Amino acid sequence: MQIPVIQKVLAANDLISEELRAQFEKAGLLVVNLMGSPGAGKTSLVERTLEHLRKLKIGVIEGDVATSLDADRIARFGVPVVQINTGGACHLDAAMVRKALGSLDVSELDILLIENVGNLICPAQFDLGEACKAVVCSLPEGDDKVLKYPAIFSLVSAVVLNKLDLLDRLNFNLPDFRRHMAELNPDAALMELSCLTGEGFDRWIEWLELGARNAREFGGGSQSPARCRE
Amino acid sequence: MQIPVIQKVLAANDLISEELRAQFEKAGLLVVNLMGSPGAGKTSLVERTLEHLRKLKIGVIEGDVATSLDADRIARFGVPVVQINTGGACHLDAAMVRKALGSLDVSELDILLIENVGNLICPAQFDLGEACKAVVCSLPEGDDKVLKYPAIFSLVSAVVLNKLDLLDRLNFNLPDFRRHMAELNPDAALMELSCLTGEGFDRWIEWLELGARNAREFGGGSQSPARCRE
Repeated sequence: MQIPVIQKVLAANDLISEELRAQFEKAGLLVVNLMGSPGAGKTSLVERTLEHLRKLKIGVIEGDVATSLDADRIARFGVPVVQINTGGACHLDAAMVRKALGSLDVSELDILLIENVGNLICPAQFDLGEACKAVVCSLPEGDDKVLKYPAIFSLVSAVVLNKLDLLDRLNFNLPDFRRHMAELNPDAALMELSCLTGEGFDRWIEWLELGARNAREFGGGSQSPARCRE
Repeated sequence: MQIPVIQKVLAANDLISEELRAQFEKAGLLVVNLMGSPGAGKTSLVERTLEHLRKLKIGVIEGDVATSLDADRIARFGVPVVQINTGGACHLDAAMVRKALGSLDVSELDILLIENVGNLICPAQFDLGEACKAVVCSLPEGDDKVLKYPAIFSLVSAVVLNKLDLLDRLNFNLPDFRRHMAELNPDAALMELSCLTGEGFDRWIEWLELGARNAREFGGGSQSPARCRE
């Protein structure tokens, strides 16, 4: 009984997400759907990005079950930000993003970062019209996450492995994590960094800059997710 | 369109979970539904519990989207364990637990620990017939999780705040976390501990022992969730 209903929901979502994708490509905008577990450091990644990438215009959509805590953190940087509260739903969907765009002028942006609800499972199923999906994973979560949550790691163009500063205190096998990713999704860029110390952050910034340039120059093509890959 | 379907799914789940609850209470068994984000330390908590609580007979159900990694870790302790792979679903439901019970003799157990899928949102909605819901949250996830994921924290009888050993390396405001819990759900027991160092673990063991004693002596009552509270 459940499966046909879910398929209908996904099909309805895809109608809207394709409309959004066309709008984003027309505007020459790079849109990244940032997913990850609660507390992986998605908002910290956005904060550090706003500090490091001042030459591009960045807008942010924050998705949370409740509160505007994350949007408040982002608003301090003086960039356009919209908070979506799902009121219980475990993921963003394209209709929520379309509604949020009513408060954002995408024609003025180079990059739109959409921070999804903290959840390593459900957001993977819902296309938001983004050019690229990225997952933020952190060392304290353990080195087995690629194996245990394969759907999300197989879909993304980039993996940000955060909290590298804690490596000396954790029993985290970095070669194992790299190998699991290389076996599951060899095309994804793996960026190991620390939002706290800034170590490794340059690669993330370069990846965003490359994506933004591609979106600006080739916007409107159908190969957008591939273009985000290095 | 979605809401009536979800209500039907939940109603169907509750029919099965009430059947399970009656079975567990008749057997005088304490059943704990362990929820939490990916990598919060749910499996580590179960491992340390099996080391520290040798005088009680403990069985384990491991819920994961994919792999039997967690059940393999538990099987090393020589206790009855069943792995459920949801194959994509973001939570356990009562039907999955009922099926797993085909491989577990609950009449031989004092405690059944059900480790849910790593997810701080969806598992809260699905009753598994347990006496107590507990959430494992860890310091690296940040001190704002109670505010941002209120549904799960409001439902539980116990909060295990894990990875206390990292307190010196993180910007985690422990008084804030305690205050958020006290305001949202003052009846829940809050146990701050480290599965790595063992610090604070005694309180969790005492909480389980008290719950097991209550289940054995008063099993069959309708007040089971309250009985787990301290």
